Amino acid sequence: MNSYSNVLGNTFAQNNEIEKLVEIISKLPGLGKRSGRRLALHLIRNREKIMLPLADSLKETAEKIVQCKKCGNLDVYNPCSVCADETRDKTLICVVEDLPDLWAMERSHCYKGSYHVLGGTLSAIDGRTPSDIRLDELYKRVIQDGVIEVIIATNSTVEGQATAHYITNMLSELTVKITRLAQGIPMGGELDYLDEGTLSAALSSRKEF
Amino acid sequence: MNSYSNVLGNTFAQNNEIEKLVEIISKLPGLGKRSGRRLALHLIRNREKIMLPLADSLKETAEKIVQCKKCGNLDVYNPCSVCADETRDKTLICVVEDLPDLWAMERSHCYKGSYHVLGGTLSAIDGRTPSDIRLDELYKRVIQDGVIEVIIATNSTVEGQATAHYITNMLSELTVKITRLAQGIPMGGELDYLDEGTLSAALSSRKEF
Repeated sequence: MNSYSNVLGNTFAQNNEIEKLVEIISKLPGLGKRSGRRLALHLIRNREKIMLPLADSLKETAEKIVQCKKCGNLDVYNPCSVCADETRDKTLICVVEDLPDLWAMERSHCYKGSYHVLGGTLSAIDGRTPSDIRLDELYKRVIQDGVIEVIIATNSTVEGQATAHYITNMLSELTVKITRLAQGIPMGGELDYLDEGTLSAALSSRKEF
Repeated sequence: MNSYSNVLGNTFAQNNEIEKLVEIISKLPGLGKRSGRRLALHLIRNREKIMLPLADSLKETAEKIVQCKKCGNLDVYNPCSVCADETRDKTLICVVEDLPDLWAMERSHCYKGSYHVLGGTLSAIDGRTPSDIRLDELYKRVIQDGVIEVIIATNSTVEGQATAHYITNMLSELTVKITRLAQGIPMGGELDYLDEGTLSAALSSRKEF
């Protein structure tokens, strides 16, 4: 720790504010003490251009963002602008684990239905049960909104797959169509670098030219 | 870009605030779009515990931090608390390139003199000349404060070494003693992983047991 006392009797006095800032930044995911210091310094050096706008943006976002009661998306509106968008197909729901997945789908520009953000996966290890993620809400939506198709777009991880199976079971009694994203070779993927699971999935789901 | 228009007619409306935040975070050094999104989400999820404290800390630091007129350090006081600390030896100046170097020296807890922060190195490539870094101030301090020893602690890079040489030349006409940090094998360093330069420096500066 950068600790020394000064004439004012404060320990940490020299970098009191900087230390505090570094402390907070260092604890963010993917960052450590060193990158925290580097970022803090970069911010201090660019006070007007980056530091104050960032502070304002953080405050503003923290104050405005709410969770959409319908789909679980985060937005400044409730219902969120995806749910409020009348051009989007409400009878089509894409189930994603979390916000970054929704953002990724949006970046692809090819989906025009609505979403359902689970807010996580089922996990025996982390003790997440069906009541911890937004499954009840999904069930109710499917019934109430006359949903025709549910696209399960959970991640291709063990927990994502388990969650996908749970959802399939849960919705099987309803008349809704349940689909999942195709598995196979990613764009630009080289066979040599792909795992066996991906290759075998790509092979068994092969299509005619 | 995560762009789509909604019923309110705004493009970006859904993630307007989040987009803005991600944009700012993504441009920080060492971060990109993906880590920016991850950080933004982590912040939004921890609104009270991390996001607002970070916003406050940024604002507070931005408002309070000033550069010490004497040594170039950044602090909430001017002169900074290192310069104001009467227990520290004012006749001993450690010249460092930048703040992180000063912080590193402080973390070692073994230096009780004062500092001089150059704010960079001389660099032919980046066009930094002696007047761009705080060399004049160093020269004046050495004369005015009756400095006995100047420890040059610039980095062991080409530019750091060039700056060290320039300082040595600049101060050679004065009676001040000029030293530099020892070069050699770092603590825990394994010979097999060290470069030839370090090894040859360690060999030629070898000491008797």
